[in-house]
Amino acid sequence: MYREQIKVLDCTIRDGGLINKHDFDDRFVREVYKALAVSGVDYMEIGYKNSRELFSPKEYGKWKFCDDDDIKRIIDGIETKMKISVMVDIGRVNIDDVKPKKDSPVDMIRTACYVKDVDKAIAMINHFSEKGYETTCNIMAISKTIDKELNETLQQLEEQTKAQAIYIVDSYGSLYQETTEFYIKKSKQYIKTKEVGFHGHNNQQLAFSNTIESIIHDANYLDATIYGIGRGAGNCPIELLLGFLKNPKFDIRPIYDVISREFIPLLNKIEWGYFIPYAITGMLDEHPRAAIALRASHQKENYREFYEGLVGAQ
Amino acid sequence: MYREQIKVLDCTIRDGGLINKHDFDDRFVREVYKALAVSGVDYMEIGYKNSRELFSPKEYGKWKFCDDDDIKRIIDGIETKMKISVMVDIGRVNIDDVKPKKDSPVDMIRTACYVKDVDKAIAMINHFSEKGYETTCNIMAISKTIDKELNETLQQLEEQTKAQAIYIVDSYGSLYQETTEFYIKKSKQYIKTKEVGFHGHNNQQLAFSNTIESIIHDANYLDATIYGIGRGAGNCPIELLLGFLKNPKFDIRPIYDVISREFIPLLNKIEWGYFIPYAITGMLDEHPRAAIALRASHQKENYREFYEGLVGAQ
Repeated sequence: MYREQIKVLDCTIRDGGLINKHDFDDRFVREVYKALAVSGVDYMEIGYKNSRELFSPKEYGKWKFCDDDDIKRIIDGIETKMKISVMVDIGRVNIDDVKPKKDSPVDMIRTACYVKDVDKAIAMINHFSEKGYETTCNIMAISKTIDKELNETLQQLEEQTKAQAIYIVDSYGSLYQETTEFYIKKSKQYIKTKEVGFHGHNNQQLAFSNTIESIIHDANYLDATIYGIGRGAGNCPIELLLGFLKNPKFDIRPIYDVISREFIPLLNKIEWGYFIPYAITGMLDEHPRAAIALRASHQKENYREFYEGLVGAQ
Repeated sequence: MYREQIKVLDCTIRDGGLINKHDFDDRFVREVYKALAVSGVDYMEIGYKNSRELFSPKEYGKWKFCDDDDIKRIIDGIETKMKISVMVDIGRVNIDDVKPKKDSPVDMIRTACYVKDVDKAIAMINHFSEKGYETTCNIMAISKTIDKELNETLQQLEEQTKAQAIYIVDSYGSLYQETTEFYIKKSKQYIKTKEVGFHGHNNQQLAFSNTIESIIHDANYLDATIYGIGRGAGNCPIELLLGFLKNPKFDIRPIYDVISREFIPLLNKIEWGYFIPYAITGMLDEHPRAAIALRASHQKENYREFYEGLVGAQ
C-alpha cells in the first residue's frame, strides 16, 4: 500500500527555531535527533546555514549557523541511516563557509527562494551540488507567484540544476486542497527528472491535509515537525503524517515519547499552533508577521480589531 | 462563486455540552446565540432533547433537555432568520415530550443513529416531520459501517422519510480526504431527493479539510462549532468554515468577538482540541472514550503507553 519513494523530512529545529532565534540547547536537539533516528524519518533539518557577518551569534543560537562541529556533537555515537539537512536563504549565506561534503556531517542543503531569486538559487544549488551535497530548491510564497513566472521557474529548475527535489512552500498557510492540487500538478508537469515536495503551514489547520493532498498527486518529499512546532501556527505534525503513511519502516512511538517529555513542557515557554490571528492571515493570504506581532502584544486576543485592520488595509 | 444551497449549522452548545454535561449558563448561551445570529449562520443547535426519566436534571444542565421555555428565554428579543435545532438520540427521548412545531421555538429536530437503528430512526423522524418540524438523520460512526448495510440504510432513509438532509458523521475523526469523498459520493448515489450533510471531528486536525472535501463532492449541510469546541478533539471550527465559504451573507466578525470574550476564557476551565491521545484514537478508528479518560487522569501525557495499550488490545 505504501509508496517507497516517499521521504519524510523533519524540520523541527530549523522551523521551530524561528520562534526562539534557534536557541535550543544541545540536550534538547539531541533528544529530537534520537527520537527521529529511531522513528525511521529520512532527514532531519537541524537549522540554517547563515553568515555570522549578517547575524550576530550574541543574538541568535547556534542552529542559526549550523557549524559542522556543533552538528557532530549532536549526532555523535548514534547509529542511524537518517541524514542531516540544513537550509540556506538567498543572500544570507557565505558559500565559502560550506566545506566539501566529504568533510562535513551535513548530507543535504536546501535552498529557499522566492521566484524572483531563481537565478541566484540555481547558482547556489549547483555550487552545493558540486561540493557533493544532496540539494533541493524550496519555492516560498507560492500563493503569491504569477503563474507565468512560476512556470518559467519550474522549467529552469528542471533544466539547470541537479536538485533532487523541488518543493512547493505554502508560506502563508493559505492553500486548500484544490489549490494544493493545482500547484503539485503544475510542478509535476515541469519537474520530470526530480521529485516534487511540499511544505505546509497550519494557519487554517490544513497543513496535514494539504500534505495528504500533495501525496495524492505524487509529491514524494514531505516536510513536517514534531507536534507541529514552527513559527506562528506551525507546520504539519509529523506524528500525524507518520500515522497516515503506511511504510513499515516508520515507528511512531519515539515521537510520542519525545512529545510527552520535551514538547509539552516547551509549550509553557514558547507558543505555536492554532490561534485566530494566524487563521486570519492564512485566510487573507498574508505574511504572518502582523499576527506574530499581535500575539506578542498586550492585545493578543483582540481578534476582531486585528481582522478589521487587515481587511481595511487590503 | 458560492453555492447558495449550503447551510451551516452551529452545534457549539450541543456538542460542546458533551464536555460539561450541558451546563452552560443562560448568559453564555445567549452570547453564542447573538453572535451566530448576526454572523448569518443558518441553524444553531442548542442541545439534546433527552428524557428526564433517563438523565437526572441534578446531574446535567438544561441543554441536555432543551425545554421550550429555556430556549424561549435565550432567543427572546433577538431578530434573526437563524433557526433553532435540537438533537435526539434513539431510545433517549420521550417523543410525547415534543410539542407540535407551531407551539415550539424549535425549528428542526435531528435524529442521531447508528446504522443498526435505522428503522427506529425512521419512525422517529417521521413522527417529528408529522408534528411539523424540519428533520435530518445523522448517521454516526460511519467508518464502522458495513458497506452493504450502509447502502441499505441510505436507500431506506431516501425512500421512507421526509428528512431534508442525511448526514455522514465521522464520529471517531478517522476519515481522510479520500474516505470522506467515498462516503459523500456514495450518499449522493442513494440520496436523490434530500441534501447530504457532513459532521467531522478534529482528532487528526482534519475536521475542516474533510468538510471542504464534502463541499467539493456536493454535501450542502455542514456542521461546525465556535473555535472547534466539542468533546475530545472537537469539531470543524466555524470561523474557518465561514472564512472558506464565499456567500456574502456570512459575517465572520461576531464570531471573532465571541471567541475573544467567551471561548478563550472558557479554555481555562474545560479542555478541547488537538491532543495526542485523540489523534491516536482517530488514527486507530476507535471511540475517543479511552482518550477522554486518559486526559482526565494523572497520566494525561503518557502518550506512548496509551498508544501501546490500544494497539496491543486491537
